[in-house]
Amino acid sequence: MDPIDRLREDLIEAGTFGRIPPERVERYDQLDPQKGITRPTGTEANKKFRDYAVERMKEAGLAVTVDNIGNIFGKKEGFKNTKGTVMFGSHADSVTNGGMFDGSLGVFGAIEAMRRINEEGFENERPLEVVIFTGEEGSAFKQTLLGSSVLTGKTKLQQALGMKNDEAITLEESLKNIGYHGASLRGLDDIEYMVELHVEQGPILSKENMPIGIVENITGIAWLMVTIAGQENHAGTTPMKMRKDALVAASEIISFVNKRANDMVNELGASTVGTVGKLNVFPNGTNIVPGRVEMGIDVRDVNKENMENLKNETLEIIKRIEEKYGVDAEIQMPITHNPVPLSQEVADIIEKSAKQIGISSKRMNSGAGHDSQNMAEKVKTGMIFVPSINGISHSPMEWTDWEDIKKGAKVLTQALKNLSRQKK
Amino acid sequence: MDPIDRLREDLIEAGTFGRIPPERVERYDQLDPQKGITRPTGTEANKKFRDYAVERMKEAGLAVTVDNIGNIFGKKEGFKNTKGTVMFGSHADSVTNGGMFDGSLGVFGAIEAMRRINEEGFENERPLEVVIFTGEEGSAFKQTLLGSSVLTGKTKLQQALGMKNDEAITLEESLKNIGYHGASLRGLDDIEYMVELHVEQGPILSKENMPIGIVENITGIAWLMVTIAGQENHAGTTPMKMRKDALVAASEIISFVNKRANDMVNELGASTVGTVGKLNVFPNGTNIVPGRVEMGIDVRDVNKENMENLKNETLEIIKRIEEKYGVDAEIQMPITHNPVPLSQEVADIIEKSAKQIGISSKRMNSGAGHDSQNMAEKVKTGMIFVPSINGISHSPMEWTDWEDIKKGAKVLTQALKNLSRQKK
Repeated sequence: MDPIDRLREDLIEAGTFGRIPPERVERYDQLDPQKGITRPTGTEANKKFRDYAVERMKEAGLAVTVDNIGNIFGKKEGFKNTKGTVMFGSHADSVTNGGMFDGSLGVFGAIEAMRRINEEGFENERPLEVVIFTGEEGSAFKQTLLGSSVLTGKTKLQQALGMKNDEAITLEESLKNIGYHGASLRGLDDIEYMVELHVEQGPILSKENMPIGIVENITGIAWLMVTIAGQENHAGTTPMKMRKDALVAASEIISFVNKRANDMVNELGASTVGTVGKLNVFPNGTNIVPGRVEMGIDVRDVNKENMENLKNETLEIIKRIEEKYGVDAEIQMPITHNPVPLSQEVADIIEKSAKQIGISSKRMNSGAGHDSQNMAEKVKTGMIFVPSINGISHSPMEWTDWEDIKKGAKVLTQALKNLSRQKK
Repeated sequence: MDPIDRLREDLIEAGTFGRIPPERVERYDQLDPQKGITRPTGTEANKKFRDYAVERMKEAGLAVTVDNIGNIFGKKEGFKNTKGTVMFGSHADSVTNGGMFDGSLGVFGAIEAMRRINEEGFENERPLEVVIFTGEEGSAFKQTLLGSSVLTGKTKLQQALGMKNDEAITLEESLKNIGYHGASLRGLDDIEYMVELHVEQGPILSKENMPIGIVENITGIAWLMVTIAGQENHAGTTPMKMRKDALVAASEIISFVNKRANDMVNELGASTVGTVGKLNVFPNGTNIVPGRVEMGIDVRDVNKENMENLKNETLEIIKRIEEKYGVDAEIQMPITHNPVPLSQEVADIIEKSAKQIGISSKRMNSGAGHDSQNMAEKVKTGMIFVPSINGISHSPMEWTDWEDIKKGAKVLTQALKNLSRQKK
């Protein structure tokens, strides 16, 4: 079988796990918004995905191990095993009703790269090791990037294993149920490099018709959950002067976040994004002045200062709006992640690799979070993006052209070959 | 029993119909936001309210009739029956989980006025007639002001009787079930005047510590139901420049409606109000650029031109916002009522009446709709408002001080006496 056909077959087959009914989707025009992939950690679909991947890894001659947070590893020794390992892969889980490439491409792209390296008879100096992370999406156990957080020591093993899903089953039980609770945790001392192939999940490569993105930074992110308390009143009988309209106050915050993020892009060339994605109005009747609004604000930038500035300016505006409209704001900040720069060394090698095989690429940032941001704190890490049509992801309509998938796998393979011979 | 104690007793007793459990609430501090009045047309509570009122009307010597839309009338002949009748009263129904004075005060205040006139031995020249309207709130059958719309010929009887409630029971069946489906419709040819006593449902009298409001105009009202379609995207990976954020577009509309209504108040001294009371965001996730927003806009003024201006300027702004943000707006206008001026003659008589008995009053407008706006198109109509504490209505927390209730009943009684002798 042609290598690209083999990877295509893996992705299509894996795309039946967690789809109801488990149809094989081979083309964009077969996508159905009602029939996405639901493959959270611990589900039957998640087990099938893991089993299928492990089978392919064993076929490729890899030595498969599982750690006690359920991360799967498949290792091929190198001819100079004293040098640090090159690790590569992605995650096993999906969001609810998500797409067939998110995570899956990085897993089966890694396995395909290993198969090609084997077939070419390429002799890797450094060991090569596929990794499949547990629970990146937080769709079953509510913390995102869970497998890599435990692997890198950011989250304690026992804490993670004790987390419960919506059915009140612990992660430990879940992993035992699907047969992926290994005996011990894998250390990272022997790892030198990490590479993750992933769909962009944004519109940039697709719009620019660029097959490969090389990630330089993973965005920082801050969430502000704001509750504005005004005063509920009759919309007909309450004069404008006597109102404390929580939605009018909220809309000024929405406009500010949007305008300020745009200004930062225009004035500083920043990659700042600011979004109010969630908003609930109470009591929510056309003829009632809103008494309360709950809103969720998402602020991101790969530049920490920009992110902090937009966050802090938004907090200031909220204070001013409290005074202006006589409303009270309560603010919670459940998420604050700093931006993470990836390895320039790895980015250079990926760029060189693409060039060697005649595939164009561009440097870019990631506006979404990935396991690589945890890995980057411990080992030299790079990411390879391929285009997402219309920038759509976390949706059944997520799609990447097979031609781009092929190019992504080729660049990954070439980069692994280069990294395995990297001197440093 | 002292007259005010008698009216108080009627209102407290009527305030047990539709409250669960049917507790007697005698003081503001006994109000419970979980225990409001639910007395829509055709319910057991609505029947109890009607039965109790009819009993009081018969005790007062009135000749009670019911028309075939369920409006109840209680007539006392005058000594010059050739002159047009003075009608007065309010509605029998309530909103879901509403207050104990909305409608009820106008009904029992009317009956109390009749009792006083009887007791004083006052000889009314014109006939006096209590009216209790069917279905003002639209809480069971979805058209508001239903009884008065049929009585005044704005809505056809057969159309109204065929309307169905949430249980798919027609109004005709509902009225038969509670024993209030009369044989024929009452004409209005013999009616000269109409007076309705009602709680203000707004904050003006309460804030100004003024016991009586005399209504000059009932507001016009226009509803714009707007659906904005943008593009749903990942909030992290979609650059600001590539967005069509439906909520950002909506918030500019919200700000405009609020600012423009305020400007009209400030610059023209207008009584315009503009409110976005309802807003739903889709898909409503903090990290997702909103793809769709549904919003309900409520525009009101007693001045038709102001109302039309705010409505039309809002429509223009929506067009501009469609272009600015690349979104599509769909607009429906389910409600457009023109403002209704009430009778200056009746307002003058009410004002004179209050003065005669040493009670202060002020002219004002009504920002809520009332049966009187239908009646005003056929007969000379006036309204008497009493204060609503904090302007709260359509809520279990609706309250009016007993002292203000007393003053309202006194002014109504005096106005009826004067109207019954009115020459014209």
